[in-house]
Amino acid sequence: MKAPIGVFDSGVGGLTVAREIMRQLPNENIVYFGDTARVPYGSKSKDTIIRYSRQDINFLQTKKVKAIVVACNTASAVALEEIKDEYQVPILGVVEPGAMAAAEATQNGNIGIIGTEATIKSGIYNNYLRKIKPNISIVSKACPLFVPLVEEGLIEDRVTDDIVGRYLGEFKEYQIDALILGCTHYPFLSNSIARFMGPEVKLVNPAYETAKQLKELLKQKNILNEGEEKVIYDFYVSDAVDKFNSFANGMLPIQVESSSVVNIENY
Amino acid sequence: MKAPIGVFDSGVGGLTVAREIMRQLPNENIVYFGDTARVPYGSKSKDTIIRYSRQDINFLQTKKVKAIVVACNTASAVALEEIKDEYQVPILGVVEPGAMAAAEATQNGNIGIIGTEATIKSGIYNNYLRKIKPNISIVSKACPLFVPLVEEGLIEDRVTDDIVGRYLGEFKEYQIDALILGCTHYPFLSNSIARFMGPEVKLVNPAYETAKQLKELLKQKNILNEGEEKVIYDFYVSDAVDKFNSFANGMLPIQVESSSVVNIENY
Repeated sequence: MKAPIGVFDSGVGGLTVAREIMRQLPNENIVYFGDTARVPYGSKSKDTIIRYSRQDINFLQTKKVKAIVVACNTASAVALEEIKDEYQVPILGVVEPGAMAAAEATQNGNIGIIGTEATIKSGIYNNYLRKIKPNISIVSKACPLFVPLVEEGLIEDRVTDDIVGRYLGEFKEYQIDALILGCTHYPFLSNSIARFMGPEVKLVNPAYETAKQLKELLKQKNILNEGEEKVIYDFYVSDAVDKFNSFANGMLPIQVESSSVVNIENY
Repeated sequence: MKAPIGVFDSGVGGLTVAREIMRQLPNENIVYFGDTARVPYGSKSKDTIIRYSRQDINFLQTKKVKAIVVACNTASAVALEEIKDEYQVPILGVVEPGAMAAAEATQNGNIGIIGTEATIKSGIYNNYLRKIKPNISIVSKACPLFVPLVEEGLIEDRVTDDIVGRYLGEFKEYQIDALILGCTHYPFLSNSIARFMGPEVKLVNPAYETAKQLKELLKQKNILNEGEEKVIYDFYVSDAVDKFNSFANGMLPIQVESSSVVNIENY
């Protein structure tokens, strides 16, 4: 089925998920929407995140998508359960796949979760983890400075290492052996986080597992694209196209030549 | 004239300007709007900042304000010139007052400006400064990490001092003697900035000068409130009321008991 996969995020972070879908599902067309006019979602209220997510999905539906991936951890955590039954199209978030990967990764049953304020407050990673492995022990923490540090390019930097140490200190005390990077920007800080946590802690990036689950879902529903023709990737943002394009070109395996601006408030 | 002063900002930062108005104009009623559902403005495009500012002004006009203060440096820098003639109500930003204060403060004619990406890119502080003092020398720099550092409470912290040093290093080379804190969050970092820049550099907070100019404006137009009755302060936000109230109560000389939520996209 040639209809595209819809992917949305509060901004550019979800491109890490889109990239993983491109890699694992190379025959699928993708329509990406980044809500750059209202980024970030992670510090906003549940009601607002739900309203924004509905608008994002409504927009993607105008592109006749056959499935939607909520690439944003915050929207997945706060809005997905609430709204997915309102739509006919299957909608997949990154939280459940991330939780499954972490449950598989842990040996000692101690799992850490980091994410935005809204994601951590939702407690939803905990809910999924407890459903999968009831006896699991979980520590979670919001890390609000990680996104601005990544966006300022301080990926390898003493300041970032310092902040990583402060946010993650308590995870060491709890002797976790798996850490969910519950925000699309956090995998950029993997090196710094791994240096601090040590080699015995597995870092779980939900993007990989999400693309895997998406493939399963498309197979199950018999809507996988088996065609061999050239795939089409379309990019839409609600603001600041040029900035988006240059970021996208820095991280995607393809060249993004033009993205379109959408007035998302109209959806 | 009892009609209130309207004040708007992208979030909570503009409360520093509201506080200064309360101090210098204790008889004036105030209606404050913080666009917490779409904060921040400083990383967004000119078109989007203009659209948001129009909506903010449209909302304040429904409250029958007699004058509007754009407390947000970004909106003042990027949108004000473009839209102020569309409205009958007088609208005052923080940029012109800030530039005037800096031009008065400098002895050697070397002025530094720090602000958001959008404010610095607009070049508008430079335009005002050059109009006031044509032979002035100006250095400017965006400091995107300052707002998240303040919001994370790292006001007195080695990480903040480290980042201050990196952002402001070149200002020392240029031997500035006045530095405009061109974003409402930056005065919270005054101690750290002053320690780095040294006592010979005057830090200019546009809020003080803005309230002073507002007083002049109200006098000129003969709409100053001369009454002695109890003043009324009303607060509106587009999201996250509780977080706003607790922040407001931490910094205003009055008790904010309840704020109202506005769906700003409807204005």
